[in-house]
Amino acid sequence: MTQKFQPPRGTRDFLSEEMIRREFVLEKIKQVFEKWGFDPLDTPAFEDWKLLSAKFGGGEEIKKEIYYFKDKSDRELGLRFDLTVPLARVVATNLDLPKPFRRYQVGKVWRYDRPGFGRFREFWQADIDTVGSNKPETDAEIMACTCDVFKTLGFKDQYIRLNNRKIVEGLVLKLGIKKDRVFDVFRSIDKLEKFGEDDVRKELKMKGVSAKAINEIIKFTKIKGNPKQVLEKAKKMILDQKIGLEGIKELEEMMKSLKALGFDKDVYIDLSLVRGLEYYTGPVFEAVIKKGKWSLAGGGRYDNMIKLFSGPDTPATGISLGVERIMEVMKERKMFIALKSKTKVFVAAVNDEVRRESVKIAKKLREKGINAQTDVMGRNLRKQLEYADSLGIPYVVIVGPKELKKKKVMLRDMKRKKESEVKIKDLIKKLS
Amino acid sequence: MTQKFQPPRGTRDFLSEEMIRREFVLEKIKQVFEKWGFDPLDTPAFEDWKLLSAKFGGGEEIKKEIYYFKDKSDRELGLRFDLTVPLARVVATNLDLPKPFRRYQVGKVWRYDRPGFGRFREFWQADIDTVGSNKPETDAEIMACTCDVFKTLGFKDQYIRLNNRKIVEGLVLKLGIKKDRVFDVFRSIDKLEKFGEDDVRKELKMKGVSAKAINEIIKFTKIKGNPKQVLEKAKKMILDQKIGLEGIKELEEMMKSLKALGFDKDVYIDLSLVRGLEYYTGPVFEAVIKKGKWSLAGGGRYDNMIKLFSGPDTPATGISLGVERIMEVMKERKMFIALKSKTKVFVAAVNDEVRRESVKIAKKLREKGINAQTDVMGRNLRKQLEYADSLGIPYVVIVGPKELKKKKVMLRDMKRKKESEVKIKDLIKKLS
Repeated sequence: MTQKFQPPRGTRDFLSEEMIRREFVLEKIKQVFEKWGFDPLDTPAFEDWKLLSAKFGGGEEIKKEIYYFKDKSDRELGLRFDLTVPLARVVATNLDLPKPFRRYQVGKVWRYDRPGFGRFREFWQADIDTVGSNKPETDAEIMACTCDVFKTLGFKDQYIRLNNRKIVEGLVLKLGIKKDRVFDVFRSIDKLEKFGEDDVRKELKMKGVSAKAINEIIKFTKIKGNPKQVLEKAKKMILDQKIGLEGIKELEEMMKSLKALGFDKDVYIDLSLVRGLEYYTGPVFEAVIKKGKWSLAGGGRYDNMIKLFSGPDTPATGISLGVERIMEVMKERKMFIALKSKTKVFVAAVNDEVRRESVKIAKKLREKGINAQTDVMGRNLRKQLEYADSLGIPYVVIVGPKELKKKKVMLRDMKRKKESEVKIKDLIKKLS
Repeated sequence: MTQKFQPPRGTRDFLSEEMIRREFVLEKIKQVFEKWGFDPLDTPAFEDWKLLSAKFGGGEEIKKEIYYFKDKSDRELGLRFDLTVPLARVVATNLDLPKPFRRYQVGKVWRYDRPGFGRFREFWQADIDTVGSNKPETDAEIMACTCDVFKTLGFKDQYIRLNNRKIVEGLVLKLGIKKDRVFDVFRSIDKLEKFGEDDVRKELKMKGVSAKAINEIIKFTKIKGNPKQVLEKAKKMILDQKIGLEGIKELEEMMKSLKALGFDKDVYIDLSLVRGLEYYTGPVFEAVIKKGKWSLAGGGRYDNMIKLFSGPDTPATGISLGVERIMEVMKERKMFIALKSKTKVFVAAVNDEVRRESVKIAKKLREKGINAQTDVMGRNLRKQLEYADSLGIPYVVIVGPKELKKKKVMLRDMKRKKESEVKIKDLIKKLS
């Protein structure tokens, strides 16, 4: 074999420094999820492909976007592309789960997407969902918990964009567009941010929407103000459309809940938000940062999916955090402490005579919970120091025969490049 | 869709209680790995299938044992079946990694195996490996760290079975068997534990080994005693076979290192251990428990694999911990604290009037790091208590209008089934 192998296209290795960052982020996310009463779930990496395709109406098209394969018994499988489908399956088949079922799941998902900046074929998601409650409090909690994650990670400018598809539907119906065309209009509205007003106007025109209706839709999506103002202005445009008023009522309830939860200041109602996926049934929301290029989390209510997966009629709402995007922003903003290794101390030996002694000192450090390495290459002191430096290990204990006789070692602070003689018995106190 | 979907054959969902156990185990494992100076690595779930097959000589047979598939550009891929191959690829292609490269990796692997008791198609492994050192200290450290993991998890009867293939090779060569037949003999010896002495004798006879040589081999594998005694007896049987004596010398060095590390009492030399995989080049070891059905971890030195993957000639040694098996034993032995939910407190509302107040109390608890849930279903108190009970949440705070007026709530201990009135401001202290 002369070929050198790289990770498969669109995938990456995570070496120590990157992994330490990721573990830090995932750990914080899990902690906050648990603080809000969500419990962990894990599901297999692959699922029956019929289940995966069911989310999109059961067609074959999805095969183009996922990793699809057959096992040796010709079972058709696919790597999961999100964590919502597995959740819906778990709920549809485990009928005895206490409701509400509040679960979080943190894991890899796979999509056969064109790789690009911030876009990978293997990436992480972190989801919370509450299944079994149709109350606006439930959506409010999902949003509040999401905000809490961002705050805990150290963000200061995150906020939630919130809308309710029912409100937009109310407007669209009021404009005389037929119910079966509503989602098609949503699809165009969803392109506003990415392609701009002109393109969306053209597309809506091509879809046969009247110039007057297009004007109203664009005007509607531009309504600005605090939540109360936005909802009042929306009400005036929707007039007596029942579904629209129901949507407004739900958001009013949500804002009250958010206030009780202490997160009402973090949520903005944005009537241009509809999100692209067909299965959302009402509230939709995204976590964004000021001047951010992307949303960092997205979700909404999907009251029909569990029924679609042969489960009982069960309401559900949730959000998915984009771990890669969050980490990209945190890197850009230098929100990580640079840490290349988890090792705190390298215990170096001046020569072979004291090598075993250095091992014993490392043993004592480990017994006190201090992460420690020793030389396993039989190298000289200079090489040992170079190694510790290349790994970014902050402290080196230098064990030499002279110092050992005095029951002492040298302790080197690698950043400050300073050394001092320390009694072995004081070492743990110094390093803790 | 009327079909109900289960997890694909041989895979499982992990609901809350099981996940809490697994996270507990994985967390402890990672902590100990880091204490010993190993740093985290992550690699993609799938690899180029040519890489996967290279470990076994590049044949097509391995396709039967792994999940193999093509992506849309006809790239041949496979889900990883262990964490050693990805490590070898990382080392072979990242030539600038400081050596020794000490990494741990904890993750899922997939094998197309016949599912059975304790055998799954998707399962977890936790590996440590040190790459770049051929010194026996390195193997000793791997074994000591493994023992430390088991001790930290609460095991009291774990020990390491250690051998060196070089010693067995020395005997086999001394018995006049040709060098190219040595691994074939190892394969038979590897079956001793599973199939017994009679079957192994028959197999060796069929392989053309003389009756006298078979007797010697069996006698050799039965040598008992402390490490020093075993190695001395082995030496007498190997006589002047250089490779065998080299192997003995290595184990002697390893035992000295293990003594300095404080783990020499946990290691037994067992000359019947050879392990089944072809790529081990010297020391092999397994972690077992007394009266255990399986080994709970297995590894050894593999000095040729990185070269095989087009990397530079680089020695390496490591071990893989079988997370599922470890968890099975811990369950059998009741080593887990029963915990069905991470939520510590459910804040219940007696009626709708105080529901928002219950949310505010939960908010205060969360701000102090206490995992708390509230009702999001608008249910009555009885239903709320039933829900908290079904989840195994240990405490319920009951918010009622009467108590609220006195700035108090009821605190219910769900296990002891006892309630007491508590001032709201004392709640955090009571629950911390």
